[in-house]
Amino acid sequence: MSEAKPPSKPAVSAINPRRADDFPEWYQAVITAADMAENSEVRGCMVIKPWGYGIWELMQAQLDKMFKATGHKNAYFPLFIPLSYLEKEAAHVEGFAKECAVVTHHRLELNAEGKLVPAGKLSEPLVVRPTSETIIGAAYARWVQSYRDLPLLLNQWANVVRWEMRPRIFLRTTEFLWQEGHTAHETEEEAQIETRRMLDVYETFARDHLAIPVLTGRKSASERFPGAVDTLCIEAMVQDRKAVQAGTSHFLGQNFAQASGIQYLSRAGKKEFAWTTSWGVSTRLIGTLIMTHADDDGLVLPPRVAPTQVVIIPIIPKEEQRKDILSACTALAQKIELEQFHKADVRVEIDQRDTTGGNKTWEWIKKGVPIRVEIGPRDLEAGTVFVARRDKGPKEKQSYPKDSFAAEVPALLQAIQDGIYARAQAFQREHTKLIDSKDEFYAFFTPKNEEKPEIHGGFVLAHWNGSAEVEAKIKEDLKVTIRCIPFEDRAEPGTCIFTGEPSAQRVIFAKSY
Amino acid sequence: MSEAKPPSKPAVSAINPRRADDFPEWYQAVITAADMAENSEVRGCMVIKPWGYGIWELMQAQLDKMFKATGHKNAYFPLFIPLSYLEKEAAHVEGFAKECAVVTHHRLELNAEGKLVPAGKLSEPLVVRPTSETIIGAAYARWVQSYRDLPLLLNQWANVVRWEMRPRIFLRTTEFLWQEGHTAHETEEEAQIETRRMLDVYETFARDHLAIPVLTGRKSASERFPGAVDTLCIEAMVQDRKAVQAGTSHFLGQNFAQASGIQYLSRAGKKEFAWTTSWGVSTRLIGTLIMTHADDDGLVLPPRVAPTQVVIIPIIPKEEQRKDILSACTALAQKIELEQFHKADVRVEIDQRDTTGGNKTWEWIKKGVPIRVEIGPRDLEAGTVFVARRDKGPKEKQSYPKDSFAAEVPALLQAIQDGIYARAQAFQREHTKLIDSKDEFYAFFTPKNEEKPEIHGGFVLAHWNGSAEVEAKIKEDLKVTIRCIPFEDRAEPGTCIFTGEPSAQRVIFAKSY
Repeated sequence: MSEAKPPSKPAVSAINPRRADDFPEWYQAVITAADMAENSEVRGCMVIKPWGYGIWELMQAQLDKMFKATGHKNAYFPLFIPLSYLEKEAAHVEGFAKECAVVTHHRLELNAEGKLVPAGKLSEPLVVRPTSETIIGAAYARWVQSYRDLPLLLNQWANVVRWEMRPRIFLRTTEFLWQEGHTAHETEEEAQIETRRMLDVYETFARDHLAIPVLTGRKSASERFPGAVDTLCIEAMVQDRKAVQAGTSHFLGQNFAQASGIQYLSRAGKKEFAWTTSWGVSTRLIGTLIMTHADDDGLVLPPRVAPTQVVIIPIIPKEEQRKDILSACTALAQKIELEQFHKADVRVEIDQRDTTGGNKTWEWIKKGVPIRVEIGPRDLEAGTVFVARRDKGPKEKQSYPKDSFAAEVPALLQAIQDGIYARAQAFQREHTKLIDSKDEFYAFFTPKNEEKPEIHGGFVLAHWNGSAEVEAKIKEDLKVTIRCIPFEDRAEPGTCIFTGEPSAQRVIFAKSY
Repeated sequence: MSEAKPPSKPAVSAINPRRADDFPEWYQAVITAADMAENSEVRGCMVIKPWGYGIWELMQAQLDKMFKATGHKNAYFPLFIPLSYLEKEAAHVEGFAKECAVVTHHRLELNAEGKLVPAGKLSEPLVVRPTSETIIGAAYARWVQSYRDLPLLLNQWANVVRWEMRPRIFLRTTEFLWQEGHTAHETEEEAQIETRRMLDVYETFARDHLAIPVLTGRKSASERFPGAVDTLCIEAMVQDRKAVQAGTSHFLGQNFAQASGIQYLSRAGKKEFAWTTSWGVSTRLIGTLIMTHADDDGLVLPPRVAPTQVVIIPIIPKEEQRKDILSACTALAQKIELEQFHKADVRVEIDQRDTTGGNKTWEWIKKGVPIRVEIGPRDLEAGTVFVARRDKGPKEKQSYPKDSFAAEVPALLQAIQDGIYARAQAFQREHTKLIDSKDEFYAFFTPKNEEKPEIHGGFVLAHWNGSAEVEAKIKEDLKVTIRCIPFEDRAEPGTCIFTGEPSAQRVIFAKSY
């Protein structure tokens, strides 16, 4: 094998292994090839590189707009939680106590051997927030006096830490970035409406921005957030047919209000506990995005969250052509940017780096940029540009007249956005099955090929009697859990396939991350 | 004293105590009155409330644009730093070792008495980042191979922790929010240019957005960032005539590159250490903003960083007038918002709350909103609006024709922005003195009134021979430090007023936060 020149196109696919061969390794390889993130030397903590962080910034910007449009404001609460706060809510501490980073000292000193050692022991250890219900609850207890102070509708963008024994980049990391909304209300009904409203925001965001179709519903008791009365969720199906819980919205009842002492003087002049909610999405959305849309050539980005939506690649066979080709590229980029005044902002970039066009092309394919435009000497003569869409095959290119192309970019981006969504939706529908017998259910989730235990049927809609024991047995037998119980308005009663007992409605079963 | 009705105007000033009576207490009172932030129960950690966080969001948005316009991208690096990383740079650990939060355990367990206790001891303790040179250096060492990988121009928005024994909200807190830029370059010159470029960005931002005139220069050796070759800074004078270091930009030479192993293959084919820089500003800017502009009635916000720039207050003496007055308010708000299509985005809000106009007015004064507009029944009849500027006295109001007022808002906001800057600049100039004798220098910094030891002259421009001993003596005698050494292009030689020895240039002395 010659080492003289890197191949301009890989033999089979740009990502090795391919999805069908080893999904977990493929996932890691996509992230590396797109230069999105990497593991740091601190176990479970990732470094989010500019391409990955750029996607997160676009997610943040859009979600933040949606939170503000629904009446929320941002604030910031301390990173550290006193141990005593966690002890206040029994179910909560049970759920989180196992996985916290604990600060015990506030100083370092050099010991006799010249090594740094912890010093200044704290009288009460501090926990690095795994979530902020308790510390925000303490603030709300100070702030809320009367019904006039409600509703209190705040959100924070923050880092949180949950110690992970088996980290997987973006999907499950010790430190991750997220937003957490925390609201307090006068009535149970208002809090319930808020819980559902924010789930709707997440569903809309997933659909319209991430091009991810999600299933929505409530969690069974065993999968609920520790301390919540009700946990609503959005669940996505990724390409190995597993589920990813992509966002949650919790109705906390009066549990945390009682634990933290959030009380208000009601309209009737009585002291009452407030009704609270919390809701969050995290950098896990980036992992979900990759697993939903990426292919064997790398990342595929929905245009709405692509840091670069259009990349222009100059093709310069001879040095003397450089100036003309570069100026054509610049003119086109400017023309595309001008489209913002008519339709939508377009993020466009010219790749002027000093490497071959072929290498550049493959780099942008692996990064998932929606539209690639090549301009070379022949295009200059013909007044055309050569355009490739990331949602099509890497060799499928189309020629456009140079002068009219810019005006077509917004519609082209929307077509890609819609196309990616439609593909993900078709995949989800194809692998979601109504099942009415226990045998069929077990067969559906049993790998056909011993060597690829990860391959299985997908999502199942089946009747279940509501029993936690039945749920636990299925989990033990198949590693399958109830992902969500669809909302009542879609419910139809039937017979539990595991017990023959009555069932109020079908629930969604799947293996999950 | 009657308790029937709260007074619509406080007797003397809205903030108690006033600046002249007790500056530190006044500062705290302004923050409380504007509902910006408060101390949490975790010592030294603050809760940033929506009004304070809204100011920070506007600062972030503008700075982020400026960083991107100068070629930087955002990324995110781990919160935790292994102890061994800190040991790599000797001067760095010396400067930061005293004030770190140390994570020693990764789990909590219930002990026999049912109390939560730390468990799962880490083999190597982790430090919560006080700054990220070491952890980012480790990543850069992996990423940089050749000169083609340089310059590397990244920034991160993050929280950091430095254990503070004497915290003061916004100015000096155990946890604070900031941005930290970290860059690596091929040559010393490029890194020097970057260090200065980012200082210029900070100076421009302080001037044009925060309306704060700052002095710029380099730190003396004793005030340098631990591990830096050179620390450049912007220094603001606040209203008690003390200095606040509001931003720093460090030229790190090859110190951190050597400590972290950031090496590249040069154009000549040799392994070389990169030249690095780091630069940051933090939520301390909010404290600086308050101390620079606020007055005895509360916060005064430069329009560019005011979460609400124009507040419209309906004055409704009789219930039957409510509908007409509110619809006039809405019409005006919409008209002002439409101005964005001509000139600039204006953030406008109608205060529809169910309290009296007088109370509302005082609340917005204390929050520092630049323009207050009142609309009452008489205005409705006369077709006018009643307008007050926060940079004028609370009773100074001007009537404008309702139909033409909206178009004047952008210019009015700019006039307020400019006026606040001019006032701060005049104050700084008034209290900055060229001093040419040691006696006069000591007198300048000696309080005239024993009861108010904080009151002193301000900033001094004086000649100094460059000796660290002289500098230390002045600090010991007067708590006065060299805030910065102005850049050489403004230097003129002279005679050190402390030693009679030659001095290359005047330096700036002040007391500081």
